[in-house]
Amino acid sequence: MGMLAAAIAVGLGALGAGLGNGMIISRTVESIARQPEARNMLQTTMFVGVGIVEVIPLAATVIAFLAFFS
Amino acid sequence: MGMLAAAIAVGLGALGAGLGNGMIISRTVESIARQPEARNMLQTTMFVGVGIVEVIPLAATVIAFLAFFS
Amino acid sequence: MGMLAAAIAVGLGALGAGLGNGMIISRTVESIARQPEARNMLQTTMFVGVGIVEVIPLAATVIAFLAFFS
Amino acid sequence: MGMLAAAIAVGLGALGAGLGNGMIISRTVESIARQPEARNMLQTTMFVGVGIVEVIPLAATVIAFLAFFS
Amino acid sequence: MGMLAAAIAVGLGALGAGLGNGMIISRTVESIARQPEARNMLQTTMFVGVGIVEVIPLAATVIAFLAFFS
Amino acid sequence: MGMLAAAIAVGLGALGAGLGNGMIISRTVESIARQPEARNMLQTTMFVGVGIVEVIPLAATVIAFLAFFS
Amino acid sequence: MGMLAAAIAVGLGALGAGLGNGMIISRTVESIARQPEARNMLQTTMFVGVGIVEVIPLAATVIAFLAFFS
Amino acid sequence: MGMLAAAIAVGLGALGAGLGNGMIISRTVESIARQPEARNMLQTTMFVGVGIVEVIPLAATVIAFLAFFS
Amino acid sequence: MGMLAAAIAVGLGALGAGLGNGMIISRTVESIARQPEARNMLQTTMFVGVGIVEVIPLAATVIAFLAFFS
Amino acid sequence: MGMLAAAIAVGLGALGAGLGNGMIISRTVESIARQPEARNMLQTTMFVGVGIVEVIPLAATVIAFLAFFS
Amino acid sequence: MGMLAAAIAVGLGALGAGLGNGMIISRTVESIARQPEARNMLQTTMFVGVGIVEVIPLAATVIAFLAFFS
Amino acid sequence: MGMLAAAIAVGLGALGAGLGNGMIISRTVESIARQPEARNMLQTTMFVGVGIVEVIPLAATVIAFLAFFS
Amino acid sequence: MGMLAAAIAVGLGALGAGLGNGMIISRTVESIARQPEARNMLQTTMFVGVGIVEVIPLAATVIAFLAFFS
Amino acid sequence: MGMLAAAIAVGLGALGAGLGNGMIISRTVESIARQPEARNMLQTTMFVGVGIVEVIPLAATVIAFLAFFS
Repeated sequence: MGMLAAAIAVGLGALGAGLGNGMIISRTVESIARQPEARNMLQTTMFVGVGIVEVIPLAATVIAFLAFFS
Repeated sequence: MGMLAAAIAVGLGALGAGLGNGMIISRTVESIARQPEARNMLQTTMFVGVGIVEVIPLAATVIAFLAFFS
Repeated sequence: MGMLAAAIAVGLGALGAGLGNGMIISRTVESIARQPEARNMLQTTMFVGVGIVEVIPLAATVIAFLAFFS
Repeated sequence: MGMLAAAIAVGLGALGAGLGNGMIISRTVESIARQPEARNMLQTTMFVGVGIVEVIPLAATVIAFLAFFS
Repeated sequence: MGMLAAAIAVGLGALGAGLGNGMIISRTVESIARQPEARNMLQTTMFVGVGIVEVIPLAATVIAFLAFFS
Repeated sequence: MGMLAAAIAVGLGALGAGLGNGMIISRTVESIARQPEARNMLQTTMFVGVGIVEVIPLAATVIAFLAFFS
Repeated sequence: MGMLAAAIAVGLGALGAGLGNGMIISRTVESIARQPEARNMLQTTMFVGVGIVEVIPLAATVIAFLAFFS
Repeated sequence: MGMLAAAIAVGLGALGAGLGNGMIISRTVESIARQPEARNMLQTTMFVGVGIVEVIPLAATVIAFLAFFS
Repeated sequence: MGMLAAAIAVGLGALGAGLGNGMIISRTVESIARQPEARNMLQTTMFVGVGIVEVIPLAATVIAFLAFFS
Repeated sequence: MGMLAAAIAVGLGALGAGLGNGMIISRTVESIARQPEARNMLQTTMFVGVGIVEVIPLAATVIAFLAFFS
Repeated sequence: MGMLAAAIAVGLGALGAGLGNGMIISRTVESIARQPEARNMLQTTMFVGVGIVEVIPLAATVIAFLAFFS
Repeated sequence: MGMLAAAIAVGLGALGAGLGNGMIISRTVESIARQPEARNMLQTTMFVGVGIVEVIPLAATVIAFLAFFS
Repeated sequence: MGMLAAAIAVGLGALGAGLGNGMIISRTVESIARQPEARNMLQTTMFVGVGIVEVIPLAATVIAFLAFFS
Repeated sequence: MGMLAAAIAVGLGALGAGLGNGMIISRTVESIARQPEARNMLQTTMFVGVGIVEVIPLAATVIAFLAFFS
């Protein structure tokens, strides 16, 4: 049961992180192409954003590792 | 049963947080690219917003950890 | 059974809150970028709105904690 | 069985309330940004609307609490 | 079995009411912002509409309460 | 079994009625905002339409009540 | 088993009728708003259309009542 | 088992017929509003079309009645 | 088991035929409204098309009748 | 088991054939309406295309008949 | 079990082939209508494409026949 | 169990390959119609692309054959 | 159980790789058609991209083969 | 159970990575085609982005391998 729980937790977390980060970074790339001079500003916002998005999936990964080794 | 509950809670929470934050931050990046002078104003709203969005997923993460260690 | 119920309640609540708040705040950020002088007005509406959206997910979180510790 | 019923009731209610209110409030914010002078009128309609939308999810929450403590 | 039935009935009813009312009221707010002088006319139609939409979800809520206390 | 059947019948009926009526009434509100002088004509069509849409969900509600009290 | 069958039949029928009639009537209302002088013509087509759409859901309702009282 | 089969057959048939006819008739109403002089031509095509769409759902209804009374 | 198989076969067949024919005929009606002089040509193509689309659903209906009476 | 397999095979085949052919033929009708002089060329491509699309669903139908009579 | 496996394999294969080929051929028909002089070039690419798309569904059909007769 | 595994593997592989290749080749056909002189260049990229897309579905097919004959 | 796990792993991997690569390569083909002189640059990015996308599905394939032969 | 968990973990991870990376790289290719001189800048952002997206799916792969060999 622990392995199945680890798989579900990390799987849904990967799905959520993939969709969320995909939306953010693809928009950032598109925006940099439109305004190359605003590159630093946009990348800073992007890094802050992906850091926020990754919080819950990372917790899911931690729970998955815990569920695995318990 | 506790591990499976933890996996479902943190997995759905990661999905919800990923989609919600992805929408917010990608729009913020796009808006900064359009109006670079409004950067501070937009980022403030963004931080407030992602803080609000993260409330329920963080509660889900807390419940997941509780379900794990109980 | 109580843990599984807590996971389902808080998971669906996080999904609903993430989507609802994501729609509201991303539109607010986009609107502030278009009309920076209306910032206070828009943020007031946004805070009222996310407060309303969070009511039911917070109740879901409360029920989840109750289901957990009962 | 009572806890699982409470979780399903409040979870689906939170999903419905999140999507419904998200649509209403995001459009309101967008409309205020377009016509700031119509702010009071739009917010009145918004409050009436979210009040109507919340009726059934609140009933779902009430049923969830009843199912929990019975 | 009665509690689970109550949860399903009121949950699907809340989902239907949330989506239906969300569509109606968000369009009304948008229309008022476009033509503020037609406010009374639009709100009257809106109230009639949400009244009609709420009929079946309210019946679902009634059935849910009946299923709960029987 | 009767209660679960009542819940499924009235729940799917509420979902169908919510989506159908939501589409009709939101378009009506939008059309009245565009042509306020055609208000009576549009509302007549709207009332006829929602009456037709409600037929089957009302039958679902009747069946749900019958399944409940039998 | 008869009650569950009745619920599924009338529930799916209500969903199909709601979506189908919703599409037809909302387009009719929009078309009348664009060309008010073609009102009779459009309403005649609409009534014929909703009559055709309702055939199968009404058969579903009949089967549901039969399944209920048998 | 016969009743459940009847419910599934007529339910999916109603869903298919509702979506198919809804697409056809809503486009026909829209087309008549654009070109009122082509009304007869369009209605003829519409009647032929809905007749073709209804073939399989009617067969589903027949099978459902057969499954019911056998 | 035979009745359930008949219901699934004819139900999915009705769904496929409804969506396929709905797409074809609604486009045909729209095209005739745009170019009324090409009516015969378009209707010929439409009849050929719906005949091709109906092949597999009709086979599904035949299998359903066979599964029913065997 | 043979009947259920036949139903699943022919049902999914009908769904795939309906969607695939619906896309092809509806585009063909629309293209003929735009360029009536290219009618033969387009219909030839259409017939080749629907022939290719029907290959796998026909195999599904053959397997369904085989599963039925074995 | 062999028959059910054959049905699932050929059913999903038909769904994949129908969607894939439908996208390719409908775009080809539309492109030929726009540039009739490039007909040979487009049809060559189309035949190569549908040949590539059909590889895996044909393998699915082969596996289905193997699962059937084994 | 081996046959069911083969069916699932090759079925999902066919779905993935159909969608992926369908997107690639339909865009290639559309691009050739817009710029016929770039035909060789586009087809080379297309062949490379469909070769890459087919890698995993072909592995799925190989696993399916292995699962079948083991 | 090993074969079923191999089928699920390689099937979901094929679906993910097909969608991901399909998006990348179809956009690349479209971009080359718009700017043929940037062909080398775009293809280099494309190859890097599909290499990155294929990492996880290849791992899924490896796990599938391991699950098969263990 | 370990193999099934490995399959689910790596399968959902591949799906999430495929969708996320597909969005990022396809937008990057499109942006390079629009502004070839910003190639280095865009590719740097892209590599950072896909590195971030791959974190959770790689953790899913690691968990899958662990679940496999344990």
